[in-house]
Amino acid sequence: MQHEDSIAVELLDTTLRDGAQGQGISFSVQDKLSLVQTLDELGMTWIEAGNPGSNPKDMEFFRLASGLTLAHARLCAFGSTRKKGLSPERDPRLKSLLEAETETLVIFGKSWDLQVKEVLGVSLEENRAMIAETLAFLKAKGRTVIYDAEHFFDGWRANPEYALISVQEALDAGADRIVLCDTNGGNFPDCIARGTAAVLALRRAGEERAPLVGIHAHNDADMASACSLAAVQAGCRHVQGTLLGFGERCGNTSLAAVIPSIALKLGLSCLPAGKLERLFELSHRVAEIANVALPDTMPYVGAHAFSHKAGMHADGILKVRGSFEHIDPALVGNDRHFLMSEVGGRSAIAERAKKIDPAITKEDPVTAALALRLKTLEAGGWQFEGADASFELLVRQELGTYKPQFRIEAYRVVSEHPSGGVLACSHAWVKVWVEGQHEIAAAEGEGPVHALDRALRRALERFYPALEQVRLADFKVRVIDGKDATAAKVRVLIESTDGASAWSTVGVSEDIIEASRAALVDAIEYKLIGDRERRSSPAFPGP
Amino acid sequence: MQHEDSIAVELLDTTLRDGAQGQGISFSVQDKLSLVQTLDELGMTWIEAGNPGSNPKDMEFFRLASGLTLAHARLCAFGSTRKKGLSPERDPRLKSLLEAETETLVIFGKSWDLQVKEVLGVSLEENRAMIAETLAFLKAKGRTVIYDAEHFFDGWRANPEYALISVQEALDAGADRIVLCDTNGGNFPDCIARGTAAVLALRRAGEERAPLVGIHAHNDADMASACSLAAVQAGCRHVQGTLLGFGERCGNTSLAAVIPSIALKLGLSCLPAGKLERLFELSHRVAEIANVALPDTMPYVGAHAFSHKAGMHADGILKVRGSFEHIDPALVGNDRHFLMSEVGGRSAIAERAKKIDPAITKEDPVTAALALRLKTLEAGGWQFEGADASFELLVRQELGTYKPQFRIEAYRVVSEHPSGGVLACSHAWVKVWVEGQHEIAAAEGEGPVHALDRALRRALERFYPALEQVRLADFKVRVIDGKDATAAKVRVLIESTDGASAWSTVGVSEDIIEASRAALVDAIEYKLIGDRERRSSPAFPGP
Repeated sequence: MQHEDSIAVELLDTTLRDGAQGQGISFSVQDKLSLVQTLDELGMTWIEAGNPGSNPKDMEFFRLASGLTLAHARLCAFGSTRKKGLSPERDPRLKSLLEAETETLVIFGKSWDLQVKEVLGVSLEENRAMIAETLAFLKAKGRTVIYDAEHFFDGWRANPEYALISVQEALDAGADRIVLCDTNGGNFPDCIARGTAAVLALRRAGEERAPLVGIHAHNDADMASACSLAAVQAGCRHVQGTLLGFGERCGNTSLAAVIPSIALKLGLSCLPAGKLERLFELSHRVAEIANVALPDTMPYVGAHAFSHKAGMHADGILKVRGSFEHIDPALVGNDRHFLMSEVGGRSAIAERAKKIDPAITKEDPVTAALALRLKTLEAGGWQFEGADASFELLVRQELGTYKPQFRIEAYRVVSEHPSGGVLACSHAWVKVWVEGQHEIAAAEGEGPVHALDRALRRALERFYPALEQVRLADFKVRVIDGKDATAAKVRVLIESTDGASAWSTVGVSEDIIEASRAALVDAIEYKLIGDRERRSSPAFPGP
Repeated sequence: MQHEDSIAVELLDTTLRDGAQGQGISFSVQDKLSLVQTLDELGMTWIEAGNPGSNPKDMEFFRLASGLTLAHARLCAFGSTRKKGLSPERDPRLKSLLEAETETLVIFGKSWDLQVKEVLGVSLEENRAMIAETLAFLKAKGRTVIYDAEHFFDGWRANPEYALISVQEALDAGADRIVLCDTNGGNFPDCIARGTAAVLALRRAGEERAPLVGIHAHNDADMASACSLAAVQAGCRHVQGTLLGFGERCGNTSLAAVIPSIALKLGLSCLPAGKLERLFELSHRVAEIANVALPDTMPYVGAHAFSHKAGMHADGILKVRGSFEHIDPALVGNDRHFLMSEVGGRSAIAERAKKIDPAITKEDPVTAALALRLKTLEAGGWQFEGADASFELLVRQELGTYKPQFRIEAYRVVSEHPSGGVLACSHAWVKVWVEGQHEIAAAEGEGPVHALDRALRRALERFYPALEQVRLADFKVRVIDGKDATAAKVRVLIESTDGASAWSTVGVSEDIIEASRAALVDAIEYKLIGDRERRSSPAFPGP
């Protein structure tokens, strides 16, 4: 096993496995592949990606994932020790695990005597054999094995001798990492520190050095971060969690909340150089892929983590930066906000507007106008974080360089069940105006948005044949304030591609069809403007 | 000062003061009065309710609050030490503070030398005098004074001698409580424990016993709970926070997340007898008053805090209750849930199905049939973990006890822009069949789903007048595999309520209108079946 020299504490992200156990969390295979790429981009050491023995969909994922090129991370498949009374060679789940063909495997086994006897229903001896034989079998296949000692801390409190014996079995059988789990999430940091120290005192038969120990905590007592950091302070050098804290019940350790504490407060590197500053951006990207809202109050990466509402605090900060901030927000790529004066936002806006006109500065009146416009739109539910193309069109409008390439004069979308048998259940017609000419087109679709999209494109293709290559790559819907139910506002995010590049647009309305129309129109406008500018200048920056 | 004998650790809730600094949080005077009553009902020792010196609206609140009869809690007004260079008698903010007429006052002062010199802009001597004179003045007025040592831990790390001297001034001037604040929220529990111990070693001039020390933590490093508990373990007997963690930036200590740990894990009572079991209910009431969603994953009181999705976990719990739960959820008034999902197992399915028919077991053929049916539906994008009512209808179908109450014969939903001027942009008609009779109704709406919902309900109300009370409470849309864009499948989750209870249903289709229709139909069927069974038997378990 080689690791980048600069990493003092390894990170294992299990968003795809333990994170998927969180209520309301489910990933498509495509989501999983995007997550792997994002977590790799952040510089995770390991990515635990599923349990091919218990879930056939995971096997399909591992087949596709083997085609990814990763810069930092190693993929791991996850499974348990062999079935009771079965040799490892004959255990079909271990067979599936090996078939995932990852160099590294994570294997969990039991360390709590109560669990062994009452839940697993085997003798304490048989459980030891299950651990030892499984690990020896997988090590003989040449794999790196991370051993997760499930319920270690509960076991260590109930029967310390047996908990340590079970870990010793794993160590002697060749485990490359011993990870201590607070599976039920109810232990205190001081207990975690003492349990970690007890395992660090163990030795593999014939070895002098301490084992490489990891921590896997859960947040049931709201202390997953503190428990993980207490373990690191006690000498553990491998931290498991999920970037945003997704997981069973109250969730796993949120890596986004502990990475900065490890790096900035304990002074131990855990990401490759230059990655900590991208924590904010990549955490928000993971939230987008998972289609969940990242809590505004989330430590380090929440939108409000460095927002100051009290006048006294804002005043203090302007005198001494550290007076009401525990770290400089820029270190994690976040930004300071003063809720009354939007001082913080302008540099970010100017930075993005420079893509369209490099002359734009933070002090530019255009920047001020954009800040005001964004504030109004955001109050109405718009959000441009995941919609770069819509944001660029907004900048062009403020600069006065935006000229719409077409206009929708009218449309009608109909959904009916049963259908009359002539038209599909959803169908639409659209009438467009392009430079003085009109065109009308109709289309059927799988749903109302699909029908509208096809009719619109068909009407425009006569004028812009390049639109034939454009297609929608992704489509996301979020209800902005669900408490008003079906009359609430809806935000639609659309990702489009023409094969060469991809771009994202947004639309908001109380009516999902109208929100979709706005995002579809932006997507087509962006493509047409880009094509025109590429013709006149090769320097068009693209999305 | 007298307290209920049974309280070992006092609690001070500052939802109304520090909580109101949280972004997106604002309370009307009526909200504040309701919050005081709810927090008193839970049994808080103190309720910090505002700063009459800095906020005139708070003075109005104190006037109205003086009319409340509280069973447990004492109201406190909050303010700072006197202005620099002014005697306490002449400081208008201290005058306002006294005019709030609370028996107890909370006064904050500075303990970090950097803050004293750079932010406050006074000498270290003057700051000591500000603390001593302010407290002596207020004690002479006969008030109980809680002293908040702002930035205590940052100050203690930077200049321990001065931090302790500043606290000694407060103690000697008569402070009844010394509360140590981690104002910026960046310190670790071990630092909090050591700082607390240092203050517990101080003595008021001429006294033998240790001062009564409190903790006030913030969550910027995701460790407010752990810091508060570390302080209690070190001997502190007063914990400040906000029930749900509202507060500046990442929030204050969430009392709902630490109360059970103090009571159940440290064995120190902090609420009157019988109140801990109401923590779930009263936390949700506070969320309702504040008009925010209580996070489902919130420790102890979140809706998912005791939800089990993994089949292995559900199976374990049914064998040994403590196997995957750190406490019995009933102790805090919460409940255990088994989520229906592809990773869930037969034990969880049987457990849920028992609500419909108590005779169903894990080995029952119905359970096996349900497991198979769920697997197929989930492969098609359905998900029942957030849709209990749809799941119950599914169980009834497998049991053969499900009889649809109505049928949609046909519907048509139209979205058009611009509208013809007669109908709204979205409108729908629905034709239903109910026990041999037909009815047709039409409605307009803010969007196609809204129009369909209204038309459907209108058509059915002639047969089922109780539907008039039903309304949609929440509406969620998730694109299941966005990579196929607008032709991808859509999952719609609907929460309905009739004022007395709430239930959730799900629908999946490539067409968002069809998905919504499925969820709307389930929502109405569930209500009608429930009403009918309640009439025939009082034992209907309800949603």
